[in-house]
Amino acid sequence: MLRVPFDDLFAALRRAMEGLGLTGERAELCARLFAETTRDGVYTHGLNRFPRFVETVKNGSVLVDAEPVKVAGVGAIERWDGRSGVGNLNALVSMQRAIELAKTHGIGGVALANTNHWMRGGSYGWQAVEQGMFAICWTNTLANLPAWGATSPALGNNPLVFAVPRTGGHVVLDMAMSQFSYGTLEAYSKRGELLPVDGGFDLSGNLTKDAAAIEASQRALPIGYWKGAGLSLVLDMMAAMLAGGRATYQIPRESVRETGTSQIFLAIDGGSVGHAEEIERIADGIIDFLHQSTPVDPKRPVRYPGEQTLQVREENMRLGVPVDPEIWKRISARG
Amino acid sequence: MLRVPFDDLFAALRRAMEGLGLTGERAELCARLFAETTRDGVYTHGLNRFPRFVETVKNGSVLVDAEPVKVAGVGAIERWDGRSGVGNLNALVSMQRAIELAKTHGIGGVALANTNHWMRGGSYGWQAVEQGMFAICWTNTLANLPAWGATSPALGNNPLVFAVPRTGGHVVLDMAMSQFSYGTLEAYSKRGELLPVDGGFDLSGNLTKDAAAIEASQRALPIGYWKGAGLSLVLDMMAAMLAGGRATYQIPRESVRETGTSQIFLAIDGGSVGHAEEIERIADGIIDFLHQSTPVDPKRPVRYPGEQTLQVREENMRLGVPVDPEIWKRISARG
Repeated sequence: MLRVPFDDLFAALRRAMEGLGLTGERAELCARLFAETTRDGVYTHGLNRFPRFVETVKNGSVLVDAEPVKVAGVGAIERWDGRSGVGNLNALVSMQRAIELAKTHGIGGVALANTNHWMRGGSYGWQAVEQGMFAICWTNTLANLPAWGATSPALGNNPLVFAVPRTGGHVVLDMAMSQFSYGTLEAYSKRGELLPVDGGFDLSGNLTKDAAAIEASQRALPIGYWKGAGLSLVLDMMAAMLAGGRATYQIPRESVRETGTSQIFLAIDGGSVGHAEEIERIADGIIDFLHQSTPVDPKRPVRYPGEQTLQVREENMRLGVPVDPEIWKRISARG
Repeated sequence: MLRVPFDDLFAALRRAMEGLGLTGERAELCARLFAETTRDGVYTHGLNRFPRFVETVKNGSVLVDAEPVKVAGVGAIERWDGRSGVGNLNALVSMQRAIELAKTHGIGGVALANTNHWMRGGSYGWQAVEQGMFAICWTNTLANLPAWGATSPALGNNPLVFAVPRTGGHVVLDMAMSQFSYGTLEAYSKRGELLPVDGGFDLSGNLTKDAAAIEASQRALPIGYWKGAGLSLVLDMMAAMLAGGRATYQIPRESVRETGTSQIFLAIDGGSVGHAEEIERIADGIIDFLHQSTPVDPKRPVRYPGEQTLQVREENMRLGVPVDPEIWKRISARG
């Protein structure tokens, strides 16, 4: 495995962003989001995703100069237009605006239309908790899941993020509505391995752990069967309706042309209703109890969402961030 | 099947509530929530749940006279104390307060502590959409699910509600974090039927459709395996921390003594960011596309969450509301 120092990864990505036409602070922020995603172990959505990001810039799906603008809103909720800008920058600005609204009103929301893939959804959860805020955010996506009881795609996997601030370790859940992404299915089928649990239907309509069979049927499974399908639908509706943007069914069904997504960012300031010490004590009590769970495997203690992230982050900062050698060669050569 | 007119069910429940010590409008509202739950086909949480509600009043878990009070808050978010009052009335008041806050600020939130079982979570989603509001709400519960990779219970099934207003038919999703409730597992094991999909682990740690085996292991499955377990945890944390109330691990683990739950109610006024006609058009586009899905079974077209509810409601208003003959006999005899 090739590991490179975080600062080198960040610097190479910044130069690459500048090469794509991003300038100044925007190049730096965008590079930082990509680099931190890889640093935190979400390898699919960091550096490894960069070549696809380049493609979306080159084909005109992503406009590197476009900055989001507020188009409507009263009080604690606003509608913004992402103007087909860079997805992770638009999301960062939107979550920051929701946080500012929450500082004033206790709770704040931004509905963002006409944006692009936000890469790692967890980034905006971490952004909020690092400022002491609770957050809920989600995005719609192109159609990649059938509704429950259907064979044709009508739903997105619509990643949903819940973030809970905690001094002793933030809790950040970042989950898509599909049990496995198509990227994961591809990895399993290439290795010829079975999925750990059923991941979809085969062409005969039977549940299966065979990733290749699911790729063939295009019937991946929503989490909790009918439940995740329902959740995916309401997330899409709420995002598109409040943002005045595209719904899943209107988003081009090709990953490098997936543009015009709609997103929701909510932030809540716990300090507006409670005292920091009391809130912290409640959080610690919950995590302590969780950690006392009897594990199935004594060698694998129970963890909370985000706990693993901190360990991976620490390790990758210490040993270097693992990178795909091919992609790293291409991107670092530009320096 | 015994069916009784809705008005008779409502009147009998109101008299029963008065018999329990609820007075005036509170008896009427509480009875209405129970009656409407049965009318809408959620039979487990309406009339059939009334005997258990009576027990919780008699054992002192539910204080029929207690009304919720605001204890803190700035701007658009408030913390309320449910004072061990009637769960569905506390929830109704809290959602209404969130709606009022959303009318002023565009978005509003209430975190409610020290409350009791809210019965059917969907009630508060319907309450919001019938006033043209989007809503998200959830409750924590007693511990009835293990964390992922654990055998001991640490998580609640924490029902979560998303509600989207739509003139052509509101969309209301009401889902617990467990794939099946223990009530459903009991019904399957009594009938000796297998669950339609895996519902948990047997005593050997294998996934199973055998409801009795899951009742024996007490290892019911969260929706989406590790994903639903993570979602359950963050819902509990956010509710307890913002409400300053009990977390799942602190709630007595016996259903008739399950008291002191924490809940979150969020409402969003779409009119604060968009125009009603545009929002409606977006909603209709999504539902129309969903309805055009290719069904697995041509006789079973795809439905959205809440669509079935309207059909059941209409049928039960026309033909009478199905009731359990034993429970109906007891409750109607009090008149």
